[in-house]
Amino acid sequence: MGNEKIEMAHGAGGRMGGALLDEVIMPALGNPILEELHDGARLRVSGNIAFTTDSYVVKPIFFRGGSIGRLAVCGTVNDLAMTGAVAKYLSLALVIEEGFSIDELKNVLADIHAAADEANVKIVTGDTKVVGHGAGDGIYINTAGIGEIIEGSDISPRNIKPGMDIIVSGYLGDHAATIMAARHSIDLPDTVQSDAAPLCDLVKVMAEAAPHIAVMRDPTRGGVAATLNELARQSQVGMLLDEEKIPARDEVMGVCELLGLDILELANEGKLIAIVPHDESENLLRAMKSHRHGKNAAIIGRTTSEAKGEVGLKTRLGAIRVVEMPLGSIAPRIC
Amino acid sequence: MGNEKIEMAHGAGGRMGGALLDEVIMPALGNPILEELHDGARLRVSGNIAFTTDSYVVKPIFFRGGSIGRLAVCGTVNDLAMTGAVAKYLSLALVIEEGFSIDELKNVLADIHAAADEANVKIVTGDTKVVGHGAGDGIYINTAGIGEIIEGSDISPRNIKPGMDIIVSGYLGDHAATIMAARHSIDLPDTVQSDAAPLCDLVKVMAEAAPHIAVMRDPTRGGVAATLNELARQSQVGMLLDEEKIPARDEVMGVCELLGLDILELANEGKLIAIVPHDESENLLRAMKSHRHGKNAAIIGRTTSEAKGEVGLKTRLGAIRVVEMPLGSIAPRIC
Repeated sequence: MGNEKIEMAHGAGGRMGGALLDEVIMPALGNPILEELHDGARLRVSGNIAFTTDSYVVKPIFFRGGSIGRLAVCGTVNDLAMTGAVAKYLSLALVIEEGFSIDELKNVLADIHAAADEANVKIVTGDTKVVGHGAGDGIYINTAGIGEIIEGSDISPRNIKPGMDIIVSGYLGDHAATIMAARHSIDLPDTVQSDAAPLCDLVKVMAEAAPHIAVMRDPTRGGVAATLNELARQSQVGMLLDEEKIPARDEVMGVCELLGLDILELANEGKLIAIVPHDESENLLRAMKSHRHGKNAAIIGRTTSEAKGEVGLKTRLGAIRVVEMPLGSIAPRIC
Repeated sequence: MGNEKIEMAHGAGGRMGGALLDEVIMPALGNPILEELHDGARLRVSGNIAFTTDSYVVKPIFFRGGSIGRLAVCGTVNDLAMTGAVAKYLSLALVIEEGFSIDELKNVLADIHAAADEANVKIVTGDTKVVGHGAGDGIYINTAGIGEIIEGSDISPRNIKPGMDIIVSGYLGDHAATIMAARHSIDLPDTVQSDAAPLCDLVKVMAEAAPHIAVMRDPTRGGVAATLNELARQSQVGMLLDEEKIPARDEVMGVCELLGLDILELANEGKLIAIVPHDESENLLRAMKSHRHGKNAAIIGRTTSEAKGEVGLKTRLGAIRVVEMPLGSIAPRIC
């Protein structure tokens, strides 16, 4: 199956589907649990578990720093990490458009395998469907994930109190800027690429450095603005960010200016926000900076007892503006 | 959100996505675990678990006897049941095409809720993505499922030995015939409708009646022909079916004749095949017939030490023909 295309029959559960599985999918992902080829995988887990799902419809499928395959692993691993769980097992479901190149499929699968290795997670069960030409757009991927909850972890918006520090793990907006630049044919220097990365290991380091982290979230769709507005609303505390402290690359800020985007609304795929008691934040920041996925971490603001449920930004000029929940139309299919 | 349509912004993680969640999705599915609205659900499970995933791309979305929503719950619950597990938790991921009717979405969600109740399973985590007009086809659904493995159950093709009986739980082909008839505008009597149903309860009854069931499978895509060929190949035993004993409705056989289809290749969504030692099969059949999802169960054949890895059919005329693994093109997007 070299220079070939996906046909409808690859998705209909017969010989051609079997050949796709045996010759393309299994060699790319193969592991003993997946090879049992049951309708479902049998797994051993201990303690409480976390369970999450995400579909990935990013366009373009391949981009600097990653692909839909890398995203599909990292995104779900990170969702588990944000609930205080270590990702163990992923499912992988492909919806492929008729005519999609089997070589490109192999590249997507290779990225999935590599990212799964990096995140120390196993793909244990899967599914492939094919839809007609024009009823999809290349490939859509769903991954669901099971993780083991780290004992003692208690991650919940309920834990957010006034006077805590808001930390972000690094430069904002790299993923969205890379995708938007590709769509608008904007040249970016090599330093800017998608930040898609599994954050499970960083989270482990953070949990050790700061036992009372109130909440962690990965600011994907809707960016920091959406994530913090949601947390502010749920916890009914206020949040005040300091524009000067927000870490972002000049080139990404340039893309924002060019396209009229707000850095706080840009999606990230390898960053997290943590809200943590003030007396643990310096220790936490030091631990994060020692990790390769946290070396540009920064305290960007704090929670307040005023402006309950709202997020404010102290601008470079000293004014305070409200950071609104984005309406949601700036960047479709960013992940 | 009455007579409205899905817009791109509903999938971009901001205010409009939040409104869709708060006003449409949560009211339709709401339960306490889902309402925590974490990036993932925290769950308690005991013992070993089974994990499975399936995407659903059936066309049309609504059909007699069900919808893509009912299918998305039953299919995944059944995959878990076939591994000897009782489904506990489902994830739900929607990929919706821009312009899809929000009223139709509500109907799909209502079917999901009803089927989840029927199967005694909870939707605990979810995701919604929107793709542009022409990059999808209404709605695609992925469900992943977690089930608790029934203690002592050992369901594996390795357990299949010659001389066992092959049992099917009821009339074959109802689901595929319903879908194909709808696509080809063939009138069918009201008795024929999709058989989509959760089989977890039937499986429990079966496990009690016959402790040594070797394997169970739900013959979905590719039908009984694909399922038995796969099992014959994996176990390297032969299988011989008796055409006279295969349960199918006359109207469904009529659709097969009209469209040139083989009843053994038609997808089922509420049927299972069990292979069981001969000395337990009568007891098992009796138990199945007492259950509403097994009342038309029948022994349709047996495993043999000849023709290893192959499936044969003794026709009504007494000849034996080989039942091939379907190529896979007869019925795209059947589930």
